[in-house]
Amino acid sequence: MNKVSPIGVFDSGIGGLSVLKQLMRFLPNEKFIYLGDTARVPYGNRTPEIIRQYSKECTKFLIEKGVKLIVVACNTASSVALDAIRSISDVPVIGMIQPAAIAAIRATNNGKIGIIGTRATIASKSYSNGILGLPDSNKVELISVACPLFVPLVEEGWLRHAVTRQVAVEYLSPLIENKTDTIILGCTHYPLLLPLLNELMLGVTFIDSGEHASVASLRQLAELDLLSGESTELLKKPEIKFYVTDVPTQFIDTALRFLGFATEHPEIVDISSI
Amino acid sequence: MNKVSPIGVFDSGIGGLSVLKQLMRFLPNEKFIYLGDTARVPYGNRTPEIIRQYSKECTKFLIEKGVKLIVVACNTASSVALDAIRSISDVPVIGMIQPAAIAAIRATNNGKIGIIGTRATIASKSYSNGILGLPDSNKVELISVACPLFVPLVEEGWLRHAVTRQVAVEYLSPLIENKTDTIILGCTHYPLLLPLLNELMLGVTFIDSGEHASVASLRQLAELDLLSGESTELLKKPEIKFYVTDVPTQFIDTALRFLGFATEHPEIVDISSI
Repeated sequence: MNKVSPIGVFDSGIGGLSVLKQLMRFLPNEKFIYLGDTARVPYGNRTPEIIRQYSKECTKFLIEKGVKLIVVACNTASSVALDAIRSISDVPVIGMIQPAAIAAIRATNNGKIGIIGTRATIASKSYSNGILGLPDSNKVELISVACPLFVPLVEEGWLRHAVTRQVAVEYLSPLIENKTDTIILGCTHYPLLLPLLNELMLGVTFIDSGEHASVASLRQLAELDLLSGESTELLKKPEIKFYVTDVPTQFIDTALRFLGFATEHPEIVDISSI
Repeated sequence: MNKVSPIGVFDSGIGGLSVLKQLMRFLPNEKFIYLGDTARVPYGNRTPEIIRQYSKECTKFLIEKGVKLIVVACNTASSVALDAIRSISDVPVIGMIQPAAIAAIRATNNGKIGIIGTRATIASKSYSNGILGLPDSNKVELISVACPLFVPLVEEGWLRHAVTRQVAVEYLSPLIENKTDTIILGCTHYPLLLPLLNELMLGVTFIDSGEHASVASLRQLAELDLLSGESTELLKKPEIKFYVTDVPTQFIDTALRFLGFATEHPEIVDISSI
């Protein structure tokens, strides 16, 4: 592994493409390998042992591809499997939880932090525990809200639909009433709803976990002197190789929605044999 | 100068506080010195020679304060005075133009890039020239629109007012008609209009110059091993010392609007004698 090695990103599915988008924004000169474990999505309903096993398989796959950094785009895997992943990785590993938790505490002015995510993520208390393990966390008030309809609405592409607005108003009302000034988007799909969320909650700081994980990745690579040099072809999109573990129904359409540009077809791989 | 030295930021006025906000987001462990040359704002209408002289005075002031990096938050100074500033600075200097120009070319998918700014910034062609000096710039189409009412509307605090919406629709219509997919916010005040702009132009990537200058600053400091360590007091806002060159009418109110939290009163300094 060296400066021109790719960065590896894995997620239980395709939601991690929103994290990849942020990585491309902050690390535009890098190459990427994206692995979506679509055969076994979602991880959220599985036991921690199984999630650790799947995460280690994803990790081994990326390491064999020669990555210089691994970004765990999956909130569930970041929450329960980060130590297991690090135990088998000889490259740095960045998860979703800690960078977002730190950013949320830093961003709040009134100490009221909201966390929104899938039912599984909220039930896992991963972000709450992430925040509670940090300095000054005793001075903040946390309020968590599960927003289970957001993922299907995003996958339907109804990012600004009247229905989505109505759903968001309903979900966000406890956060609005509580005068929460900072909200962690605890799900990889939610950044696509940001235009709507910003409209509904003006002045609230939304913490995009993928963005903060990307900044942490930039910092980590810079400190290790592992950033690749500036490209001279600015219009060219970064070189990204996509892998999935199951037939990628609608992958191209979804990738276009998440990344904003057309991607190559993903390659189907079997990682359970690794 | 060393890791715990502050980062210096200067602007012709208070607009640069939006750049400071981005710097705090990406470099939350740093100390900052902000200098607003409010006695001589705006720089946009002055001759390049005068702008260079003023910029050098700001630079000398910050260097005497022992900064480890200088961020030129002023678009006009970034445009015409960067070489003059660098010629007298022994620390790295980051301007507004190049990081935004690179980000815009990278972000566009259809090659249509819009630039919005004050009359002076648009007339100066600083962003157009910044883009035209880059690789692949011959493959993009630029369209520049001056939006002179945006600064007074932001200073009035009418960020989502019906009037501001009407003004924005009028200003942006050539960009909407042209199907521009990427727009550079070429003025430090404009990021405050982002919720409105995102609502009016869904799917367009807005390039916040301050954000990209901040990422460039993070990268530069990391590469020079000059990042300060992680703080253990996450709730505490970064240590910022504010200087202005004239009586700071409404500074506290404006700073609150730009930064999102209450700041200390600025100190008035005379930098023309430096």
